[in-house]
Amino acid sequence: MFRYALKIEYDGSNFYGWQKQPDLETIQGVINNCIKILDPFSEGVVGAGRTDTGVHAIGQVAHVDLEKEWSPKELQNAINYYLKPNLISIIAVERVSPEFHARFSALKRYYVYKIFIRNAPLALEKNRYWYLKKPLNKDKMMDGANYLIGSHDFTTFRSSLCQSKSPLKSIDKITISEHSYLNGSIIEIHIQAKSFLHNQVRRIAGTLQKVGTKSWPPERVGEVLEAKDRSACGPVAPPEGLYLTQVDYDKILF
Amino acid sequence: MFRYALKIEYDGSNFYGWQKQPDLETIQGVINNCIKILDPFSEGVVGAGRTDTGVHAIGQVAHVDLEKEWSPKELQNAINYYLKPNLISIIAVERVSPEFHARFSALKRYYVYKIFIRNAPLALEKNRYWYLKKPLNKDKMMDGANYLIGSHDFTTFRSSLCQSKSPLKSIDKITISEHSYLNGSIIEIHIQAKSFLHNQVRRIAGTLQKVGTKSWPPERVGEVLEAKDRSACGPVAPPEGLYLTQVDYDKILF
Repeated sequence: MFRYALKIEYDGSNFYGWQKQPDLETIQGVINNCIKILDPFSEGVVGAGRTDTGVHAIGQVAHVDLEKEWSPKELQNAINYYLKPNLISIIAVERVSPEFHARFSALKRYYVYKIFIRNAPLALEKNRYWYLKKPLNKDKMMDGANYLIGSHDFTTFRSSLCQSKSPLKSIDKITISEHSYLNGSIIEIHIQAKSFLHNQVRRIAGTLQKVGTKSWPPERVGEVLEAKDRSACGPVAPPEGLYLTQVDYDKILF
Repeated sequence: MFRYALKIEYDGSNFYGWQKQPDLETIQGVINNCIKILDPFSEGVVGAGRTDTGVHAIGQVAHVDLEKEWSPKELQNAINYYLKPNLISIIAVERVSPEFHARFSALKRYYVYKIFIRNAPLALEKNRYWYLKKPLNKDKMMDGANYLIGSHDFTTFRSSLCQSKSPLKSIDKITISEHSYLNGSIIEIHIQAKSFLHNQVRRIAGTLQKVGTKSWPPERVGEVLEAKDRSACGPVAPPEGLYLTQVDYDKILF
């Protein structure tokens, strides 16, 4: 058996998330169908993060075991050939050791949550951002975000479906940027952690949006975190603004 | 009658171009249907540029005459309300004088032609770029582009369907930029002129791509221009890379 790591980009709009499911089109499911054409005995790909329905990726990482040895470039081209016309693309492939595990070896995961603010609805950028009309105060959002950095019990920011054993997580970094684009304004929330709870980034984005509109003072982020109560959280931001951008391992891949 | 100028963004992928046509879904046709709900007697919009099937816009300009006086913001919101779920958005509206004509008053039109170069097929950016695998030499492309700047007979770069009376056009400026994006490289050809022939920008982009791959030396751009012969032209670049970005008038609109 030969193990390969794949770096994957996808438009999550028309898939029922990453995780394979019977009778539903998922990203993992579609990739596995392609890989089975190349290697009928492959057990398919294991991903670093289980992105939800509608969530995008520009740097998902997965590993796969294959019977035959492939050159990385040939494997990439072969999977991409069968992936068409799905909006999923293998953007890099690397041979890895049998100890490498896309999920368990991951040291850090990076997400960005993108918000597009303007009066006019989105045309070219539809399904790529959380579209809002009301301006957001980036500095207040960052004041709120600062309460979340570090190790905390993130029960408030956890989906009721979350399968993680513990609500304790450590957020290494949050940065928020703003720039003008297509007659509007883009706010990006960049967030890094070893791992995340289910819906954690979208719940953080929804909560920070409340702060950005000044409906909530920044301190309230600290209060709802302390509350350890899902019902204290801001709304869950919609999936179309969320991107898995990068996964780090102990050696640099790709 | 009250005349309004509209600034319009659209994803051209699923429309048969700007110009209204019986039995085909076009951008002008869809906008006119929305305007007829607001004003049954309106003759609809007149656009600054007739973009082809698949071509996008972030700054198309059109004018429309309405019986009733509207505040620009209310008119924008009303048209956008009826435009849903089409990927067309009115991003700005301004009241203009009855002498203003979106097409005939235009002093300058700006287009960008975008090329995405990488080995892996596009997922998130599909239908937004001309997707190519082979690298392009930006400097050689610019050397070729320099032959086209100024006033020339652009017969070579004209579609056989072009309705313009004269092939004489004057290109004010061409710039070519390059940057890295999503594991690949983006090349953008920015081009400005008072007006363009049908397919002129796509024929220029296809010709410069030939130069960028070094299949053609830059001087050949000068030679094919001199030839005044459509068959001497490079290929017509596909529509999905082309965007109408801006139209200038004697006063600043929007």
